[in-house]
Amino acid sequence: MYFSKSFVPILKNNPTEAKIKSHQLMLRVGMIKQSSAGIYSWLPLGFKVMKKIEQIVREEQDRIGVQEILMPTIQSSEIWKESGRYDDYGEEMLRIKDRQDREMLYGPTNEELVTEIFRSSIKSYKSLPQLLYHIQWKFRDELRPRFGIMRCREFYMKDAYSFDINDDEALFSYNKFFLSYLRTFKRLNLSAIPMAADTGPIGGNLSHEFIILADTGESKIYTDKRIFNLNSSSTILEKSSLNNLRQQYEKFYSVTDEKFDQKEFDKIVPEEFRVNTKGIEVGHIFYFGDKYSKPMNAAVDFNGKKEFVKMGSYGIGVSRLVGAIIEAKYNDKDEIMKWPISVAPYHCSIIPMIKKNDTTNLEKSNKIFEYFKSKNIDAIIDDTEENISAKIRKFNLIGIPYQLILGNKTEGDLFEFKEINGETQKLSIEDAVSQILKAKSN
Amino acid sequence: MYFSKSFVPILKNNPTEAKIKSHQLMLRVGMIKQSSAGIYSWLPLGFKVMKKIEQIVREEQDRIGVQEILMPTIQSSEIWKESGRYDDYGEEMLRIKDRQDREMLYGPTNEELVTEIFRSSIKSYKSLPQLLYHIQWKFRDELRPRFGIMRCREFYMKDAYSFDINDDEALFSYNKFFLSYLRTFKRLNLSAIPMAADTGPIGGNLSHEFIILADTGESKIYTDKRIFNLNSSSTILEKSSLNNLRQQYEKFYSVTDEKFDQKEFDKIVPEEFRVNTKGIEVGHIFYFGDKYSKPMNAAVDFNGKKEFVKMGSYGIGVSRLVGAIIEAKYNDKDEIMKWPISVAPYHCSIIPMIKKNDTTNLEKSNKIFEYFKSKNIDAIIDDTEENISAKIRKFNLIGIPYQLILGNKTEGDLFEFKEINGETQKLSIEDAVSQILKAKSN
Repeated sequence: MYFSKSFVPILKNNPTEAKIKSHQLMLRVGMIKQSSAGIYSWLPLGFKVMKKIEQIVREEQDRIGVQEILMPTIQSSEIWKESGRYDDYGEEMLRIKDRQDREMLYGPTNEELVTEIFRSSIKSYKSLPQLLYHIQWKFRDELRPRFGIMRCREFYMKDAYSFDINDDEALFSYNKFFLSYLRTFKRLNLSAIPMAADTGPIGGNLSHEFIILADTGESKIYTDKRIFNLNSSSTILEKSSLNNLRQQYEKFYSVTDEKFDQKEFDKIVPEEFRVNTKGIEVGHIFYFGDKYSKPMNAAVDFNGKKEFVKMGSYGIGVSRLVGAIIEAKYNDKDEIMKWPISVAPYHCSIIPMIKKNDTTNLEKSNKIFEYFKSKNIDAIIDDTEENISAKIRKFNLIGIPYQLILGNKTEGDLFEFKEINGETQKLSIEDAVSQILKAKSN
Repeated sequence: MYFSKSFVPILKNNPTEAKIKSHQLMLRVGMIKQSSAGIYSWLPLGFKVMKKIEQIVREEQDRIGVQEILMPTIQSSEIWKESGRYDDYGEEMLRIKDRQDREMLYGPTNEELVTEIFRSSIKSYKSLPQLLYHIQWKFRDELRPRFGIMRCREFYMKDAYSFDINDDEALFSYNKFFLSYLRTFKRLNLSAIPMAADTGPIGGNLSHEFIILADTGESKIYTDKRIFNLNSSSTILEKSSLNNLRQQYEKFYSVTDEKFDQKEFDKIVPEEFRVNTKGIEVGHIFYFGDKYSKPMNAAVDFNGKKEFVKMGSYGIGVSRLVGAIIEAKYNDKDEIMKWPISVAPYHCSIIPMIKKNDTTNLEKSNKIFEYFKSKNIDAIIDDTEENISAKIRKFNLIGIPYQLILGNKTEGDLFEFKEINGETQKLSIEDAVSQILKAKSN
């Protein structure tokens, strides 16, 4: 791909309307474009990143045995009246009348619809557990949408739902998602910590938010440094192993401000381990038993007895994660972004110095591009006539993790190669490829 | 995957509300579930098929150099007023007022929004051509939604848009899509023929519908048998080669009823080649010049002169294709469906005869499943206690193209293996794998 032909509209300066760094950067390098208040189009650079995040989220859902479905965006109001949430939800719900004057709405979440699908399909406890997810656009009509895609109206979300016969099995399902979320965020190169949280409009009595630390975060968080040393690498998909994982995390104080208690914090957490900072919510899991199954009559036969199923729901903000990763990884003072290679729009930028009427460097770039392609390395060539330092500044913002530079200093078969934020090395193309492939496989 | 744990709610009989065979089959084998009039949820079996179709469509867009973006579902009415279509579109457009009382709508198509993105991003003719596509949910508030996902309200569509400096370049873009569509439908194992068509609400003066033959189709078509012998295998992405391809097709009479002229048909097509039947539209391409760029002021600088860009748009109904493939491939008399392997929900079903308290066949099935997995063959095991002929009838409907049966007759290392509609063979597991892999790679 030539940069001159790619649809990446770069702005010279930070847009003044953007207040936080993810919003600034995404507009600046043409990842998104606002189409109306709180509603965005995703341009190729932003789309590529979001799609890679989506795929990682998907793979980690599949890995714990959740089945993918796809529910529509437009729902009938009837099921929301059944659950009792039609009036509760307030003005954030986008209400619509169709041409037949039926009350419809743009789904802000899917507990009702998935419960309706479940109850009309599953009749016996022998078909349990059922774990279902979908990745679909949602709409919440925020009064004041802001911060770009971090608090917008139309957003892309993975939401999963579990159906079990009793609390014990339902907690097993809950813990599977607990593990899955730790794995997902790790693959995105984020340290997200699970925190006890309020359940809000979803309801229930058990809930964890997964939060990454960021100065620009909207949630205040209080936790214990030692929680960052934990990991899930030895956990397996089995009841006691999963229980053990959650207990390890729950040993440490870790809450958002809704659940915060200063006295408790001071008592439980030794001073040197106290963390009091801000964070961004990237995932949220809930257990709410029969809150929806009872009013909506979602029950199975259990040896002749009717049992309401026990449900949980599990969300990850896929579009929001694009912004969250920027908040975590972007050094806005030096204007240097570096995408984790697992979600980077390209693996390597090829940056040739191009002089008028001299195509030597561009031809070399084309050859390198083809060689990269044969190694499954996705590259973009900056074929524009900008000077080399302007090009490098631009690619520092775009955040493709590796840069291969063909400047004046290119000697024979050695190229200037660097990881963003790293030292420039003089490498053969084969050695550059090995470095990128090594990073990709980690 | 065990069938008993999969979310595939099978109906015993054809649902009476469904009038055409794709609608019947999709409800019968639990591919979809209606959530309100003309709005469906996609259950795992249907979702898998649609996702595979989507991926083939995507790859064939990428292959001709179209860049993927993603526009939102909810649009502002303003751009539709600019183009003049806000009033034209009538009641099929789902109009929405948000909490601030702004006029919004659920996009039925995206000419306006993509033009808005283009005009604010691209300033010089040097950045042309630009080819952009997205795959997104659309909504058309049909008065009488029917035929399941074939004529529904919320549907999944790939729509692409081209921007060029003049007619000649724009026709080059148009012809790229012409080729891309032939390739796409071929990979879906459909013989779709391009037909001269009316442009309807999109406008313009050049347009082709891509239509597959089916008795249940909504379009009447008139064509020449010989057109089915053409193919695009020797065409390359170059002006004269593409022109030549379109000319080859246009040599034969081939129109929908809107453009039909009996006299012309009788004159041009020799009697023995006349085809007069019904078909299903699966794709539609349009060239409409400056119809949108002029009123919306989408222009580029061309050596100091302002030139309105010349545009085309190109749609493929991704969700509709699931139904179209069923209409083309399902033998409803014998109740046998066979998915093309490129989009089949699984490659092979493993169907063991299971007797009470005897797990021999199930254990064998598990081993075969793992072996298949190691060869990238995706299988499902029917672990239920239904009798073997009921299982086979069920899988004949589900349409997974290969069946491996572990019945009484299983001797040593040979298994009953068949392609749906084919003869039962006695094969070693290695030979079965070779057959499936060969079909996959075609």
